[in-house]
Amino acid sequence: MAIPVETFFLAPEAEGTLQAQIQQMIAQGILSGRFRKGEKLPSSRKLAAHLGVSRITVTLALTELQANDYLESRDRSGYYVSENAPEPPAFAAPSPRSDTIDWARALGRRFTGGDTPEKPQDWARYPYPFIYGQTDPALFDHANWRHCALQALGQKDFQSLTADYYDRDDPKLIEFIARHTLPRRGIIAQPVEILVTMGAQNALWLTAQVLLTQRRTAVIENPCYHALRDILMQSRCHLAPVNVDRDGLPPEALPDAADVIFTTPSHQAPTNATMPLARRRALLARAAEMEALIVEDDYEFEISFLRPPLPALKSLDTEGRVIYVGSFSKSIFPGLRLGYLVGSRSFIRECRALRASVLRHPPGHIQRTAAYFLSLGHYDSLVRRMGQVFARRRSAMEAALAEHGLDVAGRGVFGGSSIWMQAPEHVDMGRMDARLRAKGVLVEPGHPFFHGENRPRNFYRLAYSSISSARIAAGIERLAGELALSAENTA
Amino acid sequence: MAIPVETFFLAPEAEGTLQAQIQQMIAQGILSGRFRKGEKLPSSRKLAAHLGVSRITVTLALTELQANDYLESRDRSGYYVSENAPEPPAFAAPSPRSDTIDWARALGRRFTGGDTPEKPQDWARYPYPFIYGQTDPALFDHANWRHCALQALGQKDFQSLTADYYDRDDPKLIEFIARHTLPRRGIIAQPVEILVTMGAQNALWLTAQVLLTQRRTAVIENPCYHALRDILMQSRCHLAPVNVDRDGLPPEALPDAADVIFTTPSHQAPTNATMPLARRRALLARAAEMEALIVEDDYEFEISFLRPPLPALKSLDTEGRVIYVGSFSKSIFPGLRLGYLVGSRSFIRECRALRASVLRHPPGHIQRTAAYFLSLGHYDSLVRRMGQVFARRRSAMEAALAEHGLDVAGRGVFGGSSIWMQAPEHVDMGRMDARLRAKGVLVEPGHPFFHGENRPRNFYRLAYSSISSARIAAGIERLAGELALSAENTA
Repeated sequence: MAIPVETFFLAPEAEGTLQAQIQQMIAQGILSGRFRKGEKLPSSRKLAAHLGVSRITVTLALTELQANDYLESRDRSGYYVSENAPEPPAFAAPSPRSDTIDWARALGRRFTGGDTPEKPQDWARYPYPFIYGQTDPALFDHANWRHCALQALGQKDFQSLTADYYDRDDPKLIEFIARHTLPRRGIIAQPVEILVTMGAQNALWLTAQVLLTQRRTAVIENPCYHALRDILMQSRCHLAPVNVDRDGLPPEALPDAADVIFTTPSHQAPTNATMPLARRRALLARAAEMEALIVEDDYEFEISFLRPPLPALKSLDTEGRVIYVGSFSKSIFPGLRLGYLVGSRSFIRECRALRASVLRHPPGHIQRTAAYFLSLGHYDSLVRRMGQVFARRRSAMEAALAEHGLDVAGRGVFGGSSIWMQAPEHVDMGRMDARLRAKGVLVEPGHPFFHGENRPRNFYRLAYSSISSARIAAGIERLAGELALSAENTA
Repeated sequence: MAIPVETFFLAPEAEGTLQAQIQQMIAQGILSGRFRKGEKLPSSRKLAAHLGVSRITVTLALTELQANDYLESRDRSGYYVSENAPEPPAFAAPSPRSDTIDWARALGRRFTGGDTPEKPQDWARYPYPFIYGQTDPALFDHANWRHCALQALGQKDFQSLTADYYDRDDPKLIEFIARHTLPRRGIIAQPVEILVTMGAQNALWLTAQVLLTQRRTAVIENPCYHALRDILMQSRCHLAPVNVDRDGLPPEALPDAADVIFTTPSHQAPTNATMPLARRRALLARAAEMEALIVEDDYEFEISFLRPPLPALKSLDTEGRVIYVGSFSKSIFPGLRLGYLVGSRSFIRECRALRASVLRHPPGHIQRTAAYFLSLGHYDSLVRRMGQVFARRRSAMEAALAEHGLDVAGRGVFGGSSIWMQAPEHVDMGRMDARLRAKGVLVEPGHPFFHGENRPRNFYRLAYSSISSARIAAGIERLAGELALSAENTA
């Protein structure tokens, strides 16, 4: 039985090398049961002609499939589906189910419906993406990341790649964080005081689970990172929002009692305010008085291109009162999902046990690759390069904003990757968003950052982390045009 | 100012290429503030002689550091610490803190103290590692994994590597699971019914959070996977353990009412029983009667080298009653942390929102690498090769167990990677463990798998997934010797 050459086709949207596509096409034919054991494949000459590819490519694919036991070659008569080829399933798949479960009753808890907005996956298609937190291909050091990943895939790192670490982390990454990353923030910590997390998001989530219950109170900044508020809502604790000012969270505005204070001293998210040293000391003193813990999200400290960053709040802590959240996802790339928690031994121990239950550990390969990227100095170079480029983009943005008379609500004096903006009061930036997108402009509406019922709708975030300098002026011009139109319509 | 050559030394335990070590040593000197801007480095000749390495290696390291702006070269006078080199921190680190927090009060919830035992990180050092769930370097297809990872690091996959997917997954991996992996288990599912998870552990955890509360009841098998019991304990639901028999979970033994039934039909963990088709149908009928959901952990279905696997329980489900948990971590490698959940749209939607809050998404690079490894057929080859080798190891183990008259409590008739064993009743395998380790033998004591207060202490798991055939007989002999000694001491 020969399989007719017409059975073979390369999918028009297929990716990968031609050889890989051919291998895949044949392997899937066998796995799906379309090609049976002992059936003869067309000759490489015929197949090459039919597919319109070179014969050597077809031969390489067939040889590889033979090595993997999908095919066998018989003397000079060509390739056959191997007797040892993987078995297709012996049973037929049923027709699609009709769901009869009452899910409204069956779900014990709901996690949808939080404040975190749906963000556009297709941001790169917009000509003016003032989007926050995505990687700019023009800035990222892809070559060196690839190099480090390759090293971490080597035979010597087999264990760190493959092993079940149970509740542990890659010792190399922990060592680098303890010996190099934290000292630069003024923090001295032992390995047992450090836990690697799936980004800062995961660090904040673990912290909330371990520290908060329905009977406890958490102070949050207002406005603040919306995903943090969702995390805290899920813990069902009492929330005490405190309005931030130009210097971040004001200690004198804290409530009389609270258990945990969440703050972003390096760059307040989203206003970009940096908390001055005197206020940091005051905050620590106030927390000690209240017997509250402080969770310091050291947000964007590394994006400090205007002035060198202040030491972390944690570096001033002599009591173990501050829990520190760091992230590599922001400055390397968000798809990395790598951050860390630093805190007292008893706290880290509980976070470690919870993390083990939730997911065991962040993948070893990712941890080891990051360890290499950091220790070879590529990370610092990357951050420096980002700072230089961000400085230029920021100047372009400041100039364009001034030209069009748009109101800045918060600009970091240390740097950052965005500017916090305020439209005229009548403008609903949530609605404006659709109109801006139609013009190719992507900004981030600000209302999800605010707490409570009557959130201001006229704020927005304008990031310069993923848009080139050259496009900033034209993007701001379009934005200003739409805002002006909306003012006319109201008048 | 020249930096004396004596300042440089290669750490004796350092890893990586010599060039990388030299780069790292110099970069760290700059980052820690030991080497200052404008200081002159020793010549490459001197440095090479001092370190005992070739001059070209030193030159390559210096050139790379220059490219990264750590160093600058001045005419012919050599290398200097660059004026643009990264800044060391301007502040001194404080002396170690004394922790004054009352953590007993500060911790809102505790997650330590569960049933999951501490497992040996150094298992590979034991001559007779009958350990479960670690990767055997002799079996894993490292070359092709590396190849796929490299492809996923390419320019074309930049987006899947770096992007913040928010709450989404790699569409390529989802597509492969929907079109190829699930159909082989008899399951038809749409992409919106699939969620990628950080291994089966994470899938079970998400499921428990979404379905269970303090007011709900979960059926678990007894014995069962200890980490599942820890997950359920944390959800504070009521637990109804049901003793398994030679065919797995008996539907007639289920309690009158329950909300969710957790089961492992392919290979019961840890007894390896496979649930026959008739019992699967009975279980589904019973669950429908009780209006309970079933969570099917399709544990080790792929390790079926004795008979082809039965279709998944989920394939018989016409109501959306079964939630399916699959894993790639087991058969590829556990450090991968990759699994998936399949269930009704409403259920997956809540799991997706919770996952986004906890960690956003599993790293894109890992997802894409797995998608390539699967679609090129390497995964199937790997599983087939594992099956062949496991079959030989299992024969060797069966022979040795028979020779020494050790009691088998559960052996999979479809395959699996371990045998469930029963020592004489007086033997405490928890205590025996230390004595066996001293003899180089690593087994897994069985009591953490059991529920409740009076757990049997004489069961243990003997895996053949990480020990070579050649070592099995000698390992079992030592095990039998220790068990015999213990019988004498009791007599």
